[in-house]
Amino acid sequence: MTSLSATTERIRAAEAIAECRLIASMSEEPVRNQEPLQTTRRFLTPPVVSVHAHLRTRMQALGMSVHTDAIGNLRGLWQPPNATGKRLLLGSHIDTVPNAGAFDGVLGVVLALEWVRLAQEQNLPLPIEVVAFSEEEGVRYPVSFLSSHALAGTLDLKVLDLVDADGIRIEDAIRAFGLDPSQIPAAAIDSNVLGYIELHIEQGPVLDVEGLPLAVVEGIAGQSRLGFRFIGHANHAGTTPMHLRRDALAAAATWMTEIESLARNTEGLVATIGKLTLEPNATNVIPGCVDLSLDLRHMNDQVLAEALQQSVQKAQATAADRGLQVEWIQKTSEPSIRMDPALSSELAAAVQAAGYPPRSIPSGAGHDAMILAHRVPSAMLFLRSPGGISHHPDETVLEEDVEAALKTGRIFLSRIAKSNSASVLK
Amino acid sequence: MTSLSATTERIRAAEAIAECRLIASMSEEPVRNQEPLQTTRRFLTPPVVSVHAHLRTRMQALGMSVHTDAIGNLRGLWQPPNATGKRLLLGSHIDTVPNAGAFDGVLGVVLALEWVRLAQEQNLPLPIEVVAFSEEEGVRYPVSFLSSHALAGTLDLKVLDLVDADGIRIEDAIRAFGLDPSQIPAAAIDSNVLGYIELHIEQGPVLDVEGLPLAVVEGIAGQSRLGFRFIGHANHAGTTPMHLRRDALAAAATWMTEIESLARNTEGLVATIGKLTLEPNATNVIPGCVDLSLDLRHMNDQVLAEALQQSVQKAQATAADRGLQVEWIQKTSEPSIRMDPALSSELAAAVQAAGYPPRSIPSGAGHDAMILAHRVPSAMLFLRSPGGISHHPDETVLEEDVEAALKTGRIFLSRIAKSNSASVLK
Repeated sequence: MTSLSATTERIRAAEAIAECRLIASMSEEPVRNQEPLQTTRRFLTPPVVSVHAHLRTRMQALGMSVHTDAIGNLRGLWQPPNATGKRLLLGSHIDTVPNAGAFDGVLGVVLALEWVRLAQEQNLPLPIEVVAFSEEEGVRYPVSFLSSHALAGTLDLKVLDLVDADGIRIEDAIRAFGLDPSQIPAAAIDSNVLGYIELHIEQGPVLDVEGLPLAVVEGIAGQSRLGFRFIGHANHAGTTPMHLRRDALAAAATWMTEIESLARNTEGLVATIGKLTLEPNATNVIPGCVDLSLDLRHMNDQVLAEALQQSVQKAQATAADRGLQVEWIQKTSEPSIRMDPALSSELAAAVQAAGYPPRSIPSGAGHDAMILAHRVPSAMLFLRSPGGISHHPDETVLEEDVEAALKTGRIFLSRIAKSNSASVLK
Repeated sequence: MTSLSATTERIRAAEAIAECRLIASMSEEPVRNQEPLQTTRRFLTPPVVSVHAHLRTRMQALGMSVHTDAIGNLRGLWQPPNATGKRLLLGSHIDTVPNAGAFDGVLGVVLALEWVRLAQEQNLPLPIEVVAFSEEEGVRYPVSFLSSHALAGTLDLKVLDLVDADGIRIEDAIRAFGLDPSQIPAAAIDSNVLGYIELHIEQGPVLDVEGLPLAVVEGIAGQSRLGFRFIGHANHAGTTPMHLRRDALAAAATWMTEIESLARNTEGLVATIGKLTLEPNATNVIPGCVDLSLDLRHMNDQVLAEALQQSVQKAQATAADRGLQVEWIQKTSEPSIRMDPALSSELAAAVQAAGYPPRSIPSGAGHDAMILAHRVPSAMLFLRSPGGISHHPDETVLEEDVEAALKTGRIFLSRIAKSNSASVLK
């Protein structure tokens, strides 16, 4: 086993961060001299060609064999000479939201390649496939997780007819990228995969507030999205006394304070009213109608279902109190997904062995790992997001946290390689 | 004195309502066969020519001399053969909001002409000038009460440079209507006016809820318009636990419930948050910034000032509690205007003598009478608004209430003519 000093891992952490910033310059937005860099890189747009070229070079330099599958995932395979057992899948996505940061997604790909290097330096007999997923964010098309669904073999091919803002179908975007959409089923992974690990920035403030570099992800919270409409009566702001009003916004305000209390008093629940539209939205007219979104998330589906029910009951009670009507609709409902307990506990043990507290947190955001979890044992490692900032140019990651992820990887890979070989020998 | 039966006044009420509906067809919106009528008639737009033609004919039929002043007010003077003393000014506005009802403004002009007829039938020696104000609503230009300001001699001529949505200056709109803007100062009334009376629909629900046809207006409530901005921190709806949020909308909701309580617990105060804008207004992002309007009105300027101060303090306290910032700005501040006590009490006495309860209420909306009150004794008579509806095609007025306004007018005019003659003879 090659010995790696802490200094080497710290240097590589700095290099990984620099590489993410380099990739961030591969953007649909033109690079301007005077202005800060804007990164927007949607599914199979021109800058993806540059990212593939860069990553292909990196993979080939590591001795990996590289190909692009039919959904546009760049896939590199490290097959060690002494390979035994199944391969480990590592990866994350390379598409971004508009005006994104440099680390969401990309960092997971760059660190996957560093993990390959760590495996090589330890002469581990572990085959590793690194996947740079082409689509996760759901920005170019009204669908997300195209790539991980293709790998899991769960992509509904009907979505290929969806069009982007320019009227281009997914199928045509794939062809324009030089790929054959009829080969998508062949992108699905075979049974020779021992598990999937994804490294990703937390995108939330928990680790930053707690002063921790890393967390193992328990699972992805279940999520319900609802729409509520309070219907009152628009009227003149000057001529309608308070006791004769049916103010839709005043009713919504009362309900919003109750939703916030519900979430604050329910451990692990987050409730967000992020969108609000008012009719007629004029300073001198009492609001007649208010539309609100409600986003509820929790790791326990039962708790989530109860929160949903209470949100609806509170809306109905508030409306009834005030002589208003309320309508509601459930827009989406996703059950929670638990990460694989065995793989997660290996990851937590490696975090601890590397000298860091083995914190475990749920993820409130969706990730490719939740799609792959239906197919292979999957686990995730979060890196602290300073300030909790993501999806914004100010998104950063600390060198010391990337160093921690590399140290964790060295130990984790070594242990998993051992148990992988052992299970083959059995 | 000619004797008028109740039946005659009821028939004239029905005719007045029909006349308002006829005038409502004179609209900027094209009349379509299959669709309900839409009435939009802004300052000096083409349908105003039709309204002037109609009203000029009506005035001339009553033996009035008619002219259009330089701000576009159609003015008819009834000078009885036996005239003594000063003239009474009657009027209201003929411009409308977009997609308006048929009675707001116009009813006051139509009933003013009916009052002239009632004076004539009683051979009263009272000169009466009826003014159809060209501009009150502030819709075409970002200014309102152009007409009453011109009559009161308080029009700031700088406003003539303001432009409408098509870039047309007020001054050019006046010229295009065939008028000479340099003559606006001559539109101001002379000192030979004993007072101004305006009949108008209530535009609120008070009379309807109390089952009353008429009210004398105490005055126009003072009004403060403010803008508030709560500044928190936008963040991911899934990854940010409740205790780490600085949700601008949650803060605003708490504040909104406090504003509603303040108004409900302050006799005569109305507080309206009618406009709300959210950043970024996305279902999965915690709101980072919320802008809200606050409209406060009260007849007592001291109570209004205290309410304003409390609104600001509550916003500051809510923001401080939650680690947010709040900014506020006072956009407008109009003191309350009392109607003339003597003229109002004559009006109330006439209401009672006509057989109706002499209800007195403040007006939360602005009216031409509040501008003229600075120049001549002014009073207003409200007619019930069924359902409190105004500024909407469903706006109506009851025949029996118009009948009540005519009966009141007959008595009021007779009494005022007597005291007017008496004061001249003194």
